[in-house]
Amino acid sequence: MKILAAIDSFKGSATSEQLNDAALSGILAAYPDLQVQSIPIADGGEGVLDVLAYQENAITKTSLTTDLLGRKLEVPYLLLGDTAVIESAKVIGIDLVDVSPETISRATTYGLGAVVQSAIQAGAKTIIVSLGGTGTSDGGQGFLKSLGTTDLSDVTLIGASDVTNPYYGENGAATIFAAQKGATADQIKQLNQRDEHFAKALLKDRGIDLQKIPGAGAAGGLGGAIALLGGRLTSGFDFIADLVHLEQAIANSDLVLTGEGHLDHQSCQGKVVSGVAKLAIKHKKPCVALVGSRSDDLVGLESDLTAAFSIQTGPIALADALVTQRTLKNMALTAQNVVRVFKVRN
Amino acid sequence: MKILAAIDSFKGSATSEQLNDAALSGILAAYPDLQVQSIPIADGGEGVLDVLAYQENAITKTSLTTDLLGRKLEVPYLLLGDTAVIESAKVIGIDLVDVSPETISRATTYGLGAVVQSAIQAGAKTIIVSLGGTGTSDGGQGFLKSLGTTDLSDVTLIGASDVTNPYYGENGAATIFAAQKGATADQIKQLNQRDEHFAKALLKDRGIDLQKIPGAGAAGGLGGAIALLGGRLTSGFDFIADLVHLEQAIANSDLVLTGEGHLDHQSCQGKVVSGVAKLAIKHKKPCVALVGSRSDDLVGLESDLTAAFSIQTGPIALADALVTQRTLKNMALTAQNVVRVFKVRN
Repeated sequence: MKILAAIDSFKGSATSEQLNDAALSGILAAYPDLQVQSIPIADGGEGVLDVLAYQENAITKTSLTTDLLGRKLEVPYLLLGDTAVIESAKVIGIDLVDVSPETISRATTYGLGAVVQSAIQAGAKTIIVSLGGTGTSDGGQGFLKSLGTTDLSDVTLIGASDVTNPYYGENGAATIFAAQKGATADQIKQLNQRDEHFAKALLKDRGIDLQKIPGAGAAGGLGGAIALLGGRLTSGFDFIADLVHLEQAIANSDLVLTGEGHLDHQSCQGKVVSGVAKLAIKHKKPCVALVGSRSDDLVGLESDLTAAFSIQTGPIALADALVTQRTLKNMALTAQNVVRVFKVRN
Repeated sequence: MKILAAIDSFKGSATSEQLNDAALSGILAAYPDLQVQSIPIADGGEGVLDVLAYQENAITKTSLTTDLLGRKLEVPYLLLGDTAVIESAKVIGIDLVDVSPETISRATTYGLGAVVQSAIQAGAKTIIVSLGGTGTSDGGQGFLKSLGTTDLSDVTLIGASDVTNPYYGENGAATIFAAQKGATADQIKQLNQRDEHFAKALLKDRGIDLQKIPGAGAAGGLGGAIALLGGRLTSGFDFIADLVHLEQAIANSDLVLTGEGHLDHQSCQGKVVSGVAKLAIKHKKPCVALVGSRSDDLVGLESDLTAAFSIQTGPIALADALVTQRTLKNMALTAQNVVRVFKVRN
């Protein structure tokens, strides 16, 4: 019997690799003879570089640039052959600032351009920009400006995201995401109007309709900017799953363990658990989610997953539950108990 | 496939019957064709009457008496044929008072005698007194006094308990249990000296050694008083399991679900989960515990149980977790998910 662990990071608590290792070590403690495999995994959000750094051909490069508030910083990105992977969150991430109306009014995607240029100079032919976890809502204007004179004709630019929001409007970047990035209601209205004005001018002048591109509203409109530069948008989970050969590993396993910090019906939209579960279904493998917390009602996910358990061992405050060592201990315990049930007649 | 639920009450949250029903309804929601059986269960503590009241031949009787502080009250007890079952906690229960040094100094087992007399008058030949959940530490002196002139020659008196503490000393009734019943360190010392004095006089005068009777220290020494009156002490779980035909039900099931409010290594001593697990082992049935909370380290229990899961779906405050409807919902959810894993290849 072979057990595969492909658990997303629990944000603020443990990385994908740590959680996989904990789950599998818990299982091996009870069943030392089982075969196990860990595949660190992520969607288009934070943690992409951490996960891909485990690939054999991964080379970590660095680029000097500026963050979302214009402060100088050095950021890592990855080269996998001639494919570069840039994690937006490392450059313009929401976790780099204490969000406020003041920060969101200044936050720009400008610094991301220098990292793209650095990747081109390093020989990258395909540049994947993960769009999750950003603190910007500039409609991608900074990114467009910074790459205004850069020749992208030999480069395939890809934006990887797990959201499909349009560029502006009631489901657009500003309306849906700017509040959590510090914007007031008035600011949200202004940001949305600016995005709408830009998109309509673009449609009129160049015949390009950003509103028809799902995900153009990702990362505060950075998705739209990537599309405008000739790039395409793809599912963050899908491109990572591809790079780490997840489907093949699932096909070769007897039980798949996945998970994420919080599992709810929104997890259906391009997130790790949903993606892993769908691949497991495709290959008729049981798939159990081990999560920090889960909602009662998982709607569509319930039919894709064999089961979903919280790893908490009893009532506990959120802050205590997030302590890394406790998370890993509980993950080991819960994974072992799931396998104990799974193996009753196996 | 047949699934049996025999889950102990979660104190302060839900009864055994409610928890069994929740677990089984959660399972039936996913697998309507499964056979299920509910056996409400308890150990020697609170809830004994609730559980046994489901027996076909159970008749509820009442007795007028006084509680541990001498206040009049009417208490229920059960007649099952010529067996009477008296729940001490209903008469001298810790939950009947706000414990303090003042209450423990007055708390007496006296009122229990009247219930025994009532049962004899009702025709009982066997009288089982469950010893758990009491607020007394009077060495059983009140009980002895109240039955001083009662003819017990035609009656088999049984004390049902899940503790094996001796009458006095460092593991005795006062030393181990009086603090949680409100006693100060000084009071504990005095109570223990009184018990030691009584036991030593008894040994000298009548050759009876209370210290050699495991469980004599149950219910603040009430166990010793029962022994002194010619009764015997037995495991609370065992006698209830017998009365509800638990072993036969386990033998006829494919999966046994048990549980209790908090599961730790102390659960090994005569508690429901340990008792159910041992019967399941005997009949080679998988047994999964679904609990409010569990400790990481279950020591001996880990080898008896197939698995143990907390029903919590994420971080939550204890007070919120205790809300009955939430407990039942989480029990249904967790039981269903366990069976989903169990049934993968079954």
